Amino acid sequence: MSDAQSAGPASRTPTIGVFDSGFGGLTVLRALVARLPQARFAFLGDTARLPYGSKSRRTIARYAVQSAQFLTREMDAEYLVIACNTASALALDAIQDAVPVPVLGVIEPGAEAARAASTSNDVLVIATEATVHSHAYSAACQAQGLRALEKACPLLVPLVEEGWTDHSVTAEVIRIYLDEIRRDAATQGLKPDTLVLGCTHYPLLRPLIEKVLAGRASCAIRVIDSAESTADTAVRLLNGRAAQRNIETSAQTEIHCFATDSVDKFERLGPRFLGRPVGHVELIDLGG
Amino acid sequence: MSDAQSAGPASRTPTIGVFDSGFGGLTVLRALVARLPQARFAFLGDTARLPYGSKSRRTIARYAVQSAQFLTREMDAEYLVIACNTASALALDAIQDAVPVPVLGVIEPGAEAARAASTSNDVLVIATEATVHSHAYSAACQAQGLRALEKACPLLVPLVEEGWTDHSVTAEVIRIYLDEIRRDAATQGLKPDTLVLGCTHYPLLRPLIEKVLAGRASCAIRVIDSAESTADTAVRLLNGRAAQRNIETSAQTEIHCFATDSVDKFERLGPRFLGRPVGHVELIDLGG
Repeated sequence: MSDAQSAGPASRTPTIGVFDSGFGGLTVLRALVARLPQARFAFLGDTARLPYGSKSRRTIARYAVQSAQFLTREMDAEYLVIACNTASALALDAIQDAVPVPVLGVIEPGAEAARAASTSNDVLVIATEATVHSHAYSAACQAQGLRALEKACPLLVPLVEEGWTDHSVTAEVIRIYLDEIRRDAATQGLKPDTLVLGCTHYPLLRPLIEKVLAGRASCAIRVIDSAESTADTAVRLLNGRAAQRNIETSAQTEIHCFATDSVDKFERLGPRFLGRPVGHVELIDLGG
Repeated sequence: MSDAQSAGPASRTPTIGVFDSGFGGLTVLRALVARLPQARFAFLGDTARLPYGSKSRRTIARYAVQSAQFLTREMDAEYLVIACNTASALALDAIQDAVPVPVLGVIEPGAEAARAASTSNDVLVIATEATVHSHAYSAACQAQGLRALEKACPLLVPLVEEGWTDHSVTAEVIRIYLDEIRRDAATQGLKPDTLVLGCTHYPLLRPLIEKVLAGRASCAIRVIDSAESTADTAVRLLNGRAAQRNIETSAQTEIHCFATDSVDKFERLGPRFLGRPVGHVELIDLGG
């Protein structure tokens, strides 16, 4: 994008690497850009191998490590944000072992924000099948003193990608999923007051989810967007380091996007998630 | 599965290799088994790299050739059925070049069945985004003297995998998609009387699609299931060869299933597509 071209190659602004299996993680990048408008970002979507959500831990770890290494080795990223719930749930340790820079996932920040928001200490989490299957949110919530009930909502990602973010069919699907999870919560004696959006596609459905909740809830349920929470945590970490190292900032936001496949689709759908043009998306080959 | 174990390793029954990016192609295998109950089948679902539907031609061809070579080299398949519309649309030539056995895709048989069914010679095709983008059905229909209008229906696969094959939400989605394609057909002056199901997941929606069509159609529209058409064509080809070579048949159906990932999901959802147990699914690594 044109912003990027304004910065010379000699700039010493450190790069924040943001990684996702696809382009949903652009919602996390959007939240980061809103908080760090003068930073430089490299975003990699491993679109050749998405969705991670239906794959095994072993495969996800292999793909995620290759992607993280591209960002640290080729793009000199000094910080990594894993803007992918599935990779955060199943491969954060593997990534942290494989690269020499600080790595932040989306699970812990989401759980911390849920703790801050909940008074009943009972929370609901909706996510992809693999994220739910990993029980990473349950574990992170438990570490925060919360009881969490998770539910896989596999139709929501394709509904977002179809562009039906304000559609009666999507509202009906959300209603069905939320009725199911709240019925299960009641059966287990939980009194949830907080709902964590545990997938980077879901922020685009937040208005519709809040509308459905407002129409159904006997008591108010607050929605936590883990993209926002992750960006908050990233900024705290970066500001701490910046204070120590006197890191330069760029005059303007710089965003370089890379994808391992389907560049057209990334360029077409990406702006909905990033909230601004994604510019030219460079195709790279991670060899697999 | 137990049927498989009854056949000794010395049996000379030729193996029919069936390949898909996932397990949707089990609907094609189901149609083959119904016609060839005494054959031996090896089915490979390249589940580590699905869905092919959102990937580029280059990537799809590379994956499909690796999968086809596994079936011919490791399983000694003497015939290959590409039970995947995306791979048939984008990689049939590459597969035919890469393996020394006859290879049949699902596109041509679907177009031939549409020609046999249609009297107006105008047909509708619903499929995944990549299949539609390839215009393989348009080309195959044109070669049959038909005019085809194609439409991508990206929500139908996840709805089938969610198990909502007889659900009001799915009926509404089908209604929306079919209304759109029929409106487009009318705009272009087409009078379609035939609808081709151009995705191996869609046969599970056939009853619901026919119900929606019956409620909307001003004139009857006949549904063509390309899984059935492909099995019919495969049987004709095989019977011709069997007559020439006096091929032995097995006493019972033998089915060996392989997947590159997510064996649990394959074993859980596969029976819905195959219409019988899939037995033990063996995990293989195609290296990427």
